[in-house]
Formats: sequence, C-alpha cells, structure tokens
Amino acid sequence: MIIDVHGHYTTAPKALEDWRNRQIAGIKDPSVRPKVSELKISDDELRESIVNNQLKKMRERGSDLTIFSPRASFMAHHIGDFEVSSTWAAICNELCARVSQLFPDHFIGAAMLPQSPGVDPKTCIPELEKCVKDYGFVGINLNPDPSGGHWTSPPLSDRQWYPIYEKMVELDIPAMIHVSTSCNACFHTTGAHYLNADTTAFMQCLTSDLFKDFPTLRFLIPHGGGAVPYHWGRFRGLAQELKKPLLKDHLLHNIFFDTCVYHQPGIDLLTKVIPVDNILFASEMIGAVRGIDPETGFPYDDTKRYIEASTILSAKDKHKVYEGNARRVFPRLDAALKAKGK
Amino acid sequence: MIIDVHGHYTTAPKALEDWRNRQIAGIKDPSVRPKVSELKISDDELRESIVNNQLKKMRERGSDLTIFSPRASFMAHHIGDFEVSSTWAAICNELCARVSQLFPDHFIGAAMLPQSPGVDPKTCIPELEKCVKDYGFVGINLNPDPSGGHWTSPPLSDRQWYPIYEKMVELDIPAMIHVSTSCNACFHTTGAHYLNADTTAFMQCLTSDLFKDFPTLRFLIPHGGGAVPYHWGRFRGLAQELKKPLLKDHLLHNIFFDTCVYHQPGIDLLTKVIPVDNILFASEMIGAVRGIDPETGFPYDDTKRYIEASTILSAKDKHKVYEGNARRVFPRLDAALKAKGK
Repeated sequence: MIIDVHGHYTTAPKALEDWRNRQIAGIKDPSVRPKVSELKISDDELRESIVNNQLKKMRERGSDLTIFSPRASFMAHHIGDFEVSSTWAAICNELCARVSQLFPDHFIGAAMLPQSPGVDPKTCIPELEKCVKDYGFVGINLNPDPSGGHWTSPPLSDRQWYPIYEKMVELDIPAMIHVSTSCNACFHTTGAHYLNADTTAFMQCLTSDLFKDFPTLRFLIPHGGGAVPYHWGRFRGLAQELKKPLLKDHLLHNIFFDTCVYHQPGIDLLTKVIPVDNILFASEMIGAVRGIDPETGFPYDDTKRYIEASTILSAKDKHKVYEGNARRVFPRLDAALKAKGK
Repeated sequence: MIIDVHGHYTTAPKALEDWRNRQIAGIKDPSVRPKVSELKISDDELRESIVNNQLKKMRERGSDLTIFSPRASFMAHHIGDFEVSSTWAAICNELCARVSQLFPDHFIGAAMLPQSPGVDPKTCIPELEKCVKDYGFVGINLNPDPSGGHWTSPPLSDRQWYPIYEKMVELDIPAMIHVSTSCNACFHTTGAHYLNADTTAFMQCLTSDLFKDFPTLRFLIPHGGGAVPYHWGRFRGLAQELKKPLLKDHLLHNIFFDTCVYHQPGIDLLTKVIPVDNILFASEMIGAVRGIDPETGFPYDDTKRYIEASTILSAKDKHKVYEGNARRVFPRLDAALKAKGK
C-alpha cells in the first residue's frame, strides 16, 4: 500500500471560496456575514471535485490512500478573530470528513485548527477533538505562525503550545507543522514562507528540550524538511555547539520529514542524509507546483517517481517510506486500516 | 589560487565588543555614549586576532585569500537609529580595511552597510563609496531585513533598493545578501534566520523582473543558497507557474551561491544541481559552526575538503569554484590581483 501523508483539499467546489470571501467581507460589515447553513455543497459536487483531480492522479501515479486536510494556503489564520477562524475551520474540516466518508478507501482526514494570532492555542482543542473522535481524523496541521508571515507567536517549544501537545499525546496523533498564506510581502507563500517555516520549526525543536517534556510527541515537517536535510551538517554542528545530544537521539524519535521535494537530486539527498525510519511518502498534490518538468516530461510533484528511481533506498526501505512509517507515525491510521483488514 | 568569498571578522579584539556595548547603552542614556576615538585597537592586536585564527586555518586548510567583512551577526541593524548604525558600520569596516592592509595577500574587504529599519537605503551610499574607493573593498553585504527577523522592509525587488543597485552597477561590485542577528524569538540566528533569508531573497528575485532593470547586477546568496538547491525542482516549477523564463535565463546571470554547506552530501547536491559557473568557494570560518564533525574527524566548516572530495566537479570545474568565478563576480578583486601580477 502506498500512503501519501500530505494532501490538501485544493480542489474544493467554488462555493467554498465564495462563502469564505463573504465571510471575510463580513469582518468589516457584519450585515453581509454569511450563515454556515448558506454554504451548500452536494455529495455529487464533492465526488466530482475528487474523482477528476486527486483520485485521478492517485490512480495514474499509483498511490492508494491520502491523508487529507483542508487547503493549507486557505487556512489564513491571520484573517479575522477566533470566531472567524473557528467557523472556517469547522467548515473546511467537515468537507474533508465528507470526502473521507465518500471515498473511505482513498482518503482519511487530518484537521486544520481554528488558530488565531494572539489567541491561546488551547482554544483549538474542541475542534481537534471533534475531528479525531467524530470524524476519525488521524492527525492535525499545526501552524507555528498564525500571523501569516509576521511570526508573532512564541516558538513551538513555548508552554503556550503545551495544551495542544497534551491532547495530541492523549489521542496519539502527530502534527504536521504547516504554515498558511503569507501576508508579508517579503515572503512568497509556497516559495519562501513554507520552506522557511519548516526550517524554523526544526531549529525551534533543536534549541529546546521539548521532547524531554513530551517523549511521544511527533511532528511531521513537510516539504522535505525545508532546508534541513541539505544543511544536515550545519544542524549537527549547531546541536554540538549547543551541547545537545546527537540529532538522531535529540530529535529523530519525534521529528519526521515528508518527501515533497520535486526533483530527483533533492530526494536523493533526503534519503541519503535522513534515516529511512524518519521519511514518509508525500506529494502535496494538487498543490504549489502543478506543471510538467521539461527535464523529465513528468509532473514535478509526482514524487513517487523519484522514490521508485532511488538507488539509495532498498525495497524494504521503500516499503517503510510508502507505508510502514506512516502507520507508525499515525497510529490511528494504522488502526483504521487494520479494522478493515488492511 | 583558492579564494574564500565569505569570511567575517568574528575574532576582533574584545575592545570592539566592549565599545559596541557602550554604544548600545548610550542609546538610552546619551551620557554614556562612547566617542569613536575611545576605541583603541593596535595593529599588533589586529595581527594577533588574525594570525592565530583565520590565517592559521587558511594555512592549515589551504586557502589563499578571503573576502573579509565585518561580523554578520554583530551588524545588528535593528539596534538604534541610522546614526548608531552609521558609526558602527564605519568602525567595523575600518577594522576590516586595516586587516586587509596588514595582510594584503590574504584579505580583501567587503563592506557592511549602515542600514537601519525604515531608513531609506540610499543613506548607505557614502559609506559604501568610501569602502570601495578609499579602502579598496570589492563587494558589500546587503541585509534584506534590517529589522532583525521582523521583515519590515519591502522585498529586494522594490524600488527603495534601487539607489544601492545603481551604485553597485556603477562601481561594478556584487552584494552578498546576508542578514544579521535575529531579535525575533522564533528564529535562531544561524540555524533559521540566515537560511530563511537566503531562500527568501532568491524567491523575491524569482517573482520579480529585477534583473531586467539591472542586467549586470550580481547577488551572492550565501550558505549554499539556503533551501534553494535542495528544492531546485520546486523553484523551477514555481517559475514555470509564474510564466517566468527558465531559471538559468531568468536568474543565473545574476545570482550566485557560495559553498557554505557543512557536509559532503549537501555540497554534492549543490554541485549537481547548480551550474558550476554559479558556485563560489566559501567557508564562513570562523563562524556559526566551529566544531569537529565526529563523522569525519574534520571541522564541519572546512568546506574545501568537500570540494576536493567531489566526484561531480572536474579539475577545471574546481578551478572555477575556487578562483575563476570569484574573479568574474568580483571584478575589483580580479583587478586588484592582476595589479599584483596574480
């Protein structure tokens, strides 16, 4: 089985975006704020948005199951207050839940949280619990910068985040550390902000003793870990300067990287440098980079091709990357699969 | 000849730091603000700080000449106002000028600029001109985020930066894009902020047409280009989505990467992905990572070992990385060397 641990609902019916635009307009003018009940998307519309997009590509490329969460760039936690984020997160999560009910063999949910700048993260817990307990979601996306590129929250090692971590440990779910749209003109969202956040999150963990407090907490750092594997020597050296243990002991029981790296040399570097037990297959399709690579004739984000072509990974390693590690990092996914005899 | 294009004066005599601390204290209490004349560092002190540190390692490792600029993390443009930055930059640049006069065969200067958040960058031009014309400096370090991790300046493509670029073109000098200390708790200075800035600067150039306005402008992106080479497929794909030319045409006449990547797999990725004409040898020693890599038994930042061990670069390629490209990107360096018959 091939599990893609990083998929977002980037192809939701247009009605969702229209509703969101009305919600945003309603921040300034409450008279135009839409009711949740005004958003009407039928099962057929959901099916069509999936069958012709993600599921089509999964079949073409040969992956079986996607861990599916709301569109990352649309989370936009910086817009409005907690009430706005809370309503929006509930809507987006419910749509992912419906997709996973319509296609139970191919999609399983991960939740966005109703984060809001300056608001205590523990306010996210009711939505988180609903998604896991009612919808059967197997993970969450945690935004280390709900300000959208102004980085006004404390680092992930700060105790303000601990209520989230306590709930994650209790429910045995990991978090993918994933920012949303940048509203800072310095940072292009998918070309700078995403990668910077990955690197930043890793270094926040490196300088802290977070995983002493939460030995079973698990973070998935997407986009191949930002700059981290490419600069693995730098990070090993910085840990050494800071008198931290070796990275494999200090961080690699708790931090995992996905394979959203869109060319063969990048995947080769990742798999050479990072232990195979810490690498989880992912493509983030249909996402930031949708084109065909003229150098290969195949889509940039068809990351399975790079794993297949790897001469560094053995067949056993590839099984870990495709399935074994995902079952270990997402125990609720493993349980859901086993319940189906898979 | 082996030219290291990225060295900072990290080993300046303690008197410099003491003076700076008094200057910072003087921001709140002008009565304690020190005069420039109160900083006294003798030639012997300068010699000692170099002979036992950078020059010792250059001899041990086998590099000949370092492009030498003030300590990056100490630029701290976010501290105080333009007057504070201006005085501090003048002092730091003068020390690098004195080092290059004391060791003319081994060091040549690059200038820090007296940037200050919210202040028009053109105010930096007098210091820049002094360094190039009076001190014989061959480049500058340009900080894309003088706020120190709050990213309050416009992108590098913004016209506010154009006066600097016009002067760079006139004087035919490149800029290394290098941030300073982060005062944002989210970003570790050398483990996150530096790498993020490299990625951010590249993407700012990618989304813009800056090099159409300045076809001969040259930026050196340090630390191996942050996350860029590792995600080269992503950046190629993003350029494609944005209807930009191929990166080699869009950016690689103007953007260059150094080799401050502290492990062999990282250097191998860099040299595999980025055309050899765009890679300049550098170590940034004595810098962020000063330890011995237990996996090799050699210093992490002895980047010459990785270049030497490369099976991707030919002997001719290595000559370009070590010398040829530096002479091309820093024409004033080439002219200074030729004037000495080198």
